Amino acid sequence: MPPVAESKTVKKIILDCDPGHDDAVALLLAHGNPEIELLAVTTVVGNQTLPKVTRNALAVAAVAGITGVPFAAGCTRPLIRDIQVAPDIHGESGLDGPLLPEPEIELDARHAVDLIIETVLAHEPGTITLVPTGGLTNIAMAARKAPEIIGRVKEVVLMGGGYHVGNFSAVAEFNIAIDPEAAHIVFNAGWPVVMVGLDLTHQALATAEVAAQIAAVGTAPARFVGELLEFFGQAYKDVQGFEAPPVHDPCAVAYVIDPSIVKTRRTPVDIELAGGLTRGMTVADFRMPAPEDCRTSVAVELDHGRFWALVVDALERIGER
Amino acid sequence: MPPVAESKTVKKIILDCDPGHDDAVALLLAHGNPEIELLAVTTVVGNQTLPKVTRNALAVAAVAGITGVPFAAGCTRPLIRDIQVAPDIHGESGLDGPLLPEPEIELDARHAVDLIIETVLAHEPGTITLVPTGGLTNIAMAARKAPEIIGRVKEVVLMGGGYHVGNFSAVAEFNIAIDPEAAHIVFNAGWPVVMVGLDLTHQALATAEVAAQIAAVGTAPARFVGELLEFFGQAYKDVQGFEAPPVHDPCAVAYVIDPSIVKTRRTPVDIELAGGLTRGMTVADFRMPAPEDCRTSVAVELDHGRFWALVVDALERIGER
Amino acid sequence: MPPVAESKTVKKIILDCDPGHDDAVALLLAHGNPEIELLAVTTVVGNQTLPKVTRNALAVAAVAGITGVPFAAGCTRPLIRDIQVAPDIHGESGLDGPLLPEPEIELDARHAVDLIIETVLAHEPGTITLVPTGGLTNIAMAARKAPEIIGRVKEVVLMGGGYHVGNFSAVAEFNIAIDPEAAHIVFNAGWPVVMVGLDLTHQALATAEVAAQIAAVGTAPARFVGELLEFFGQAYKDVQGFEAPPVHDPCAVAYVIDPSIVKTRRTPVDIELAGGLTRGMTVADFRMPAPEDCRTSVAVELDHGRFWALVVDALERIGER
Amino acid sequence: MPPVAESKTVKKIILDCDPGHDDAVALLLAHGNPEIELLAVTTVVGNQTLPKVTRNALAVAAVAGITGVPFAAGCTRPLIRDIQVAPDIHGESGLDGPLLPEPEIELDARHAVDLIIETVLAHEPGTITLVPTGGLTNIAMAARKAPEIIGRVKEVVLMGGGYHVGNFSAVAEFNIAIDPEAAHIVFNAGWPVVMVGLDLTHQALATAEVAAQIAAVGTAPARFVGELLEFFGQAYKDVQGFEAPPVHDPCAVAYVIDPSIVKTRRTPVDIELAGGLTRGMTVADFRMPAPEDCRTSVAVELDHGRFWALVVDALERIGER
Repeated sequence: MPPVAESKTVKKIILDCDPGHDDAVALLLAHGNPEIELLAVTTVVGNQTLPKVTRNALAVAAVAGITGVPFAAGCTRPLIRDIQVAPDIHGESGLDGPLLPEPEIELDARHAVDLIIETVLAHEPGTITLVPTGGLTNIAMAARKAPEIIGRVKEVVLMGGGYHVGNFSAVAEFNIAIDPEAAHIVFNAGWPVVMVGLDLTHQALATAEVAAQIAAVGTAPARFVGELLEFFGQAYKDVQGFEAPPVHDPCAVAYVIDPSIVKTRRTPVDIELAGGLTRGMTVADFRMPAPEDCRTSVAVELDHGRFWALVVDALERIGER
Repeated sequence: MPPVAESKTVKKIILDCDPGHDDAVALLLAHGNPEIELLAVTTVVGNQTLPKVTRNALAVAAVAGITGVPFAAGCTRPLIRDIQVAPDIHGESGLDGPLLPEPEIELDARHAVDLIIETVLAHEPGTITLVPTGGLTNIAMAARKAPEIIGRVKEVVLMGGGYHVGNFSAVAEFNIAIDPEAAHIVFNAGWPVVMVGLDLTHQALATAEVAAQIAAVGTAPARFVGELLEFFGQAYKDVQGFEAPPVHDPCAVAYVIDPSIVKTRRTPVDIELAGGLTRGMTVADFRMPAPEDCRTSVAVELDHGRFWALVVDALERIGER
Repeated sequence: MPPVAESKTVKKIILDCDPGHDDAVALLLAHGNPEIELLAVTTVVGNQTLPKVTRNALAVAAVAGITGVPFAAGCTRPLIRDIQVAPDIHGESGLDGPLLPEPEIELDARHAVDLIIETVLAHEPGTITLVPTGGLTNIAMAARKAPEIIGRVKEVVLMGGGYHVGNFSAVAEFNIAIDPEAAHIVFNAGWPVVMVGLDLTHQALATAEVAAQIAAVGTAPARFVGELLEFFGQAYKDVQGFEAPPVHDPCAVAYVIDPSIVKTRRTPVDIELAGGLTRGMTVADFRMPAPEDCRTSVAVELDHGRFWALVVDALERIGER
Repeated sequence: MPPVAESKTVKKIILDCDPGHDDAVALLLAHGNPEIELLAVTTVVGNQTLPKVTRNALAVAAVAGITGVPFAAGCTRPLIRDIQVAPDIHGESGLDGPLLPEPEIELDARHAVDLIIETVLAHEPGTITLVPTGGLTNIAMAARKAPEIIGRVKEVVLMGGGYHVGNFSAVAEFNIAIDPEAAHIVFNAGWPVVMVGLDLTHQALATAEVAAQIAAVGTAPARFVGELLEFFGQAYKDVQGFEAPPVHDPCAVAYVIDPSIVKTRRTPVDIELAGGLTRGMTVADFRMPAPEDCRTSVAVELDHGRFWALVVDALERIGER
């Protein structure tokens, strides 16, 4: 792997995920990019059950050769709502498509919630970005169990929600809708939150051109990503009518690497918990300029070329292993 | 007034309104346009209390010289929610700005709900368009009291809602939010509904150029409209930060006159009744092509030039009186 | 039929009902009791569809020989919720059990809502009691269409709700739950409301002894009631496990006749519209003495013997016809 | 202190509390009764803020001479709702009235959630009863963080809720209403839950006779309880109009000691999360016999004499210290 860039620009992150095809790409991007220091990877029920997404995370670690980073399993179910997984999009395994290698590392013995808390408390305040790309159960539990982390986290850059579009319902997105109470906790905790929602990630389409660029890398990890995107693309075509699949989760990582790739807008966002049609909606209020104390932003525009260039670059840096 | 166009193209409408500055313009447009046959005007609590909006409707009739059309007062309050009026936008009278003339016609003795029902039943099925530009209390009451009208109404073209924007709350528009239960009834009744919402009407700005065109008409009714828009523009600037006021209600009338001026999209729409943040939201589902039996459409794009040309034309046809 | 008691003690009522076995008994009690002046009978969707309950009301009128009282049909469906009828309790006809005679009178041409409004406005203020024994759709529509009746109605004595018990759900009663929005309107309108709910009517059991008393009357109308109660008793045994059926609706009429038969308690009551488990609950607040301006009461204790004596007396007065 | 009864009958409990006057009595009862083995005491925000109730718990431990039992602090706020404390009932300290001694023991370093989890996992399955007498935040967090404890807990005997009465609102009780989402988690987790609610605890009045019995014990801890009840009684009289204060929390402990003192009924109970009037209500369904798999019970009837005898006995056993 290439040398990490000078420490000044390094961004320390904890990736909380539920791989998931796009989570896998997010993990590879985080690992391969020299500006990211991946402190921990935690898993949470979401695209599939906790055992499945945890195994998938370890499999992706094996594909990419990630070592020395603690991986910990977290919550097995949402706070209130019943478990809802997404086999129509991610398959029965949660990562259908490529052959998954055996894990090469062992799970950390700690609960994800404790790993998050301990990692945040072990670093300087304001240095760690939480990057959740699944339901927000682990992050919410950490905030409630150890509220002292809230002021120490630099920001939460999460994939989830959508201010004008849903995929779980007309106006709710999957990651938020599967645990809206957790999302409510995270959006209202007080730390800065950047919502990288469907409005943005529906711009992150893995077009044929993108697929060709990834194929051109020519390594095993790149082939793995190619196979992921092939399955993912077919699922999105069949289920939601997309021509090319939106690869949501790495957008959040890309924003951490280089905020100029993802244009954001500061605006109040809250989570609807009670609506009959709108439960789990990320309600953004664009009517007026955001008030001074507003700590939430929404991602609005993606630089598609530079985004995919980051992903391809990360794969090239990961190399053949 | 100019001769009405040949009957083949005449559209019969009942205008249910709560004047209101933009309701006044809608009424003038409906009266002055030769393709509209105004069968009845009914009033409903909304921008101001029922007595005020009813007086205002009669004042506008006097300005425009409307005679021979029954005007009837309707519901004094929403079905469930408490009365909420909009003095910040429409003033204490509901039509602040110009001097209001004394009414020249008398109110019809019937309740608006009964006038609507009787008018629909007295005409051929499929010939009457309901054009509500206020809260939907009257229309909902009519649908529940006489469900036999539902199959006889050609369509309901209403100003209200917004699929991506609100003004009452982050995601709810005033006309829907003041009586969401009535809106729920109207949107789910089974008749075709065209929702001309804020997404569309925020394109109908009365710019300085528009104001100049109206002033150029040079008649008393045009001066009346000019004074309305002056007050309305200042209110919208002060309260919502608009550079020029969005003149909502005549957009619905314009759509009836010439649907090519208002581009619409067929999509399921339902009303959120229970949400803590989203009550009164018009929840549109754009995820997939609308199902075959979908009877709701939303207005998406306005031809600004042709819209205002219609208004100016109507004022010219109304003349000096 | 016996001579009506002197006018001083006569109570004028409008019975709004959805017969319904217990509605039928309520109608017979109202007709046969000399202290009740039955001004109008209106029907509303509830135990069965509007056409069925309306036909049933006319059939009961034929059984009892009611003439000179206008019967009018009202709303075909609740304000917001979908129609829910109760064939498990009332059978497919809504009045299963006895053979129903052909109607002998014609329906009034007016809508129930208008008949209610016109009747109230045609009498002295404070003289008419509304007695709804079905869903509250008609009454709510009347209150919204003609709010001027609210101050003129003496009180609303309704069968519905329950402060500690439900039958539609754990905590909601059928009449309220089928149209909670209408109930919300009626309970909050401002007129005095006496809620004769399940807490009371589950005391009004038609025991074997009661059945024997009714059988002893020996007339055709009494036999009709006997057959009603037989079907009703079997249904309540099968569906809700009651040993003897609770005959709800005549309790409201009995309270109007003689309030000393039904002990009430003044307490604030409001209707839950939004709850996931509690929609349609009549939420009574017993924590403190009712505030001065509280206009709602709940029925708490029935004098079982005197109640059934009233019913038997009414049947005796109706006689053989 | 007297010798503990033979181990066969000993009940191991974790007391999760927010002292709180009645929590203090519960703690004294649990400590003084020979059939209870107090494994841990955990605190949670509720009657007052977490620092205050934690200090109070330690103060009560000092009063009673509790040593060798870990005390740990837990959640500082509810899962979703804002913090709501009860100074009107418990004073600014949460334990107003007596002079509070300095703590004699140190807090356990663990978070209450972890202490609960570790304690349950360290004992044989089916041996530990959780006794929450405050909001259910800690217990809910433990169930979500370590779902493996759910099958190992013998039962949860909680003070909270009310099937026919509220004190936070007309139908919601304080402990449930301050964190209804946590209550939803606890009631639906799958372990047996005995709800000792207001229906029961409003029978546990500390009458003058009870106060005299406690005074007759004549020890410092008994005087401490006397002073607690004096403040508590005045608060309940002033705020809720009670003649004598209902001493809620020890009822849950009493049920664990001797279930024959508290008559219960097995019935489904769930928590209303969404209602406008009913949020936090413990909705019990008494319509039918409880289904086979029902794991919730509600307390219905208290043996007042035997209950208070237990409390007095515990004080006597605690002695002077």
